[in-house]
Amino acid sequence: MATTSSASSKAAARSGEQAWAKTPKVNGEFFALTYGSMVMQLIKDYDDVTEVNKQLEKMGYNIGVRLIDEFLAKSGTPACQSHRETADVIAKVAFKMFLGIAAEVMNWNSERNSFSLVFFENPLTEFVELPPEMAGLVYSNMLCGCLRGALEMVQLKVECAFVRDTLKGDEVNEMTVEILQVMEEQMGDDYKDNS
Amino acid sequence: MATTSSASSKAAARSGEQAWAKTPKVNGEFFALTYGSMVMQLIKDYDDVTEVNKQLEKMGYNIGVRLIDEFLAKSGTPACQSHRETADVIAKVAFKMFLGIAAEVMNWNSERNSFSLVFFENPLTEFVELPPEMAGLVYSNMLCGCLRGALEMVQLKVECAFVRDTLKGDEVNEMTVEILQVMEEQMGDDYKDNS
Repeated sequence: MATTSSASSKAAARSGEQAWAKTPKVNGEFFALTYGSMVMQLIKDYDDVTEVNKQLEKMGYNIGVRLIDEFLAKSGTPACQSHRETADVIAKVAFKMFLGIAAEVMNWNSERNSFSLVFFENPLTEFVELPPEMAGLVYSNMLCGCLRGALEMVQLKVECAFVRDTLKGDEVNEMTVEILQVMEEQMGDDYKDNS
Repeated sequence: MATTSSASSKAAARSGEQAWAKTPKVNGEFFALTYGSMVMQLIKDYDDVTEVNKQLEKMGYNIGVRLIDEFLAKSGTPACQSHRETADVIAKVAFKMFLGIAAEVMNWNSERNSFSLVFFENPLTEFVELPPEMAGLVYSNMLCGCLRGALEMVQLKVECAFVRDTLKGDEVNEMTVEILQVMEEQMGDDYKDNS
């Protein structure tokens, strides 16, 4: 089992490198500063950080819904056959393709419908330091929304959340992905929820 | 004269390729959609497109003020000695480094203190179509602000404006850069305004 996972993870990583090479790119620090401007604007607009977190997630959702097409067109990954494969493809192909970094898949729950994406560097948070009054801000929450939007387009209803964040002093960034529902009629008979 | 300019332009282009290779990158379409979310948010916030244009320029200014450090650190370009060199470095090195595209320098005025940056593809506007009621929106105005902010940090006061825009049906994008003031005491004696 471990061997299978590692082989699929390596294949995903190779595919991620290829997808990354094929896509148009812009400078990461320019992106980080632009994203920062957007967060600042939202903070100005909504006094409440909970509302800012919600808006960032919503914006991300709308982005994810559109980016999935780009992903499917350029990544060349075949349809995933299991949650495990889906997780690998997100971590090694999608993260690489859109953010230029890879994540690790960790912390599967025993029902195998929830896992974590763990990554050290977060391109969104370069230049950022959160002042104490912003402790409740989930600065990168757009990423959670992106995942939710993109996965919904491939028939997976998920909920994502940041549970560790280097901006808050954690050693790594960790996003949990909980798979709430698989619209199985559309996924094909081969998709296995629990493998 | 033409030879010198072409040689400096080629050197700038080489330097742009190197600077581009050295910088961290993210996916251009992810950036375009994120930028689009920000523009949408501003449109929601300010009913008036003129105000949106102003805000985009202001955000760009704040980004440019910070990106110049990244530029000076990674591009390795020596201090420019003339407006002509400055223009070449913006078009071939800075555009390449931050947007992944190069621009052409054109349309110098006879006083040699104003020129245009002309480019075909604009990474910010992928996926965008302006509805007729947004005809007054300068969608990519952040770029004007970036240039103004970055150049101010190297002692050049400029004003930039989009005068052609593929979003408005023009064949190319054209930004004018008007150099209003050179803070000469800081630029060194060798900087030539009019060469």
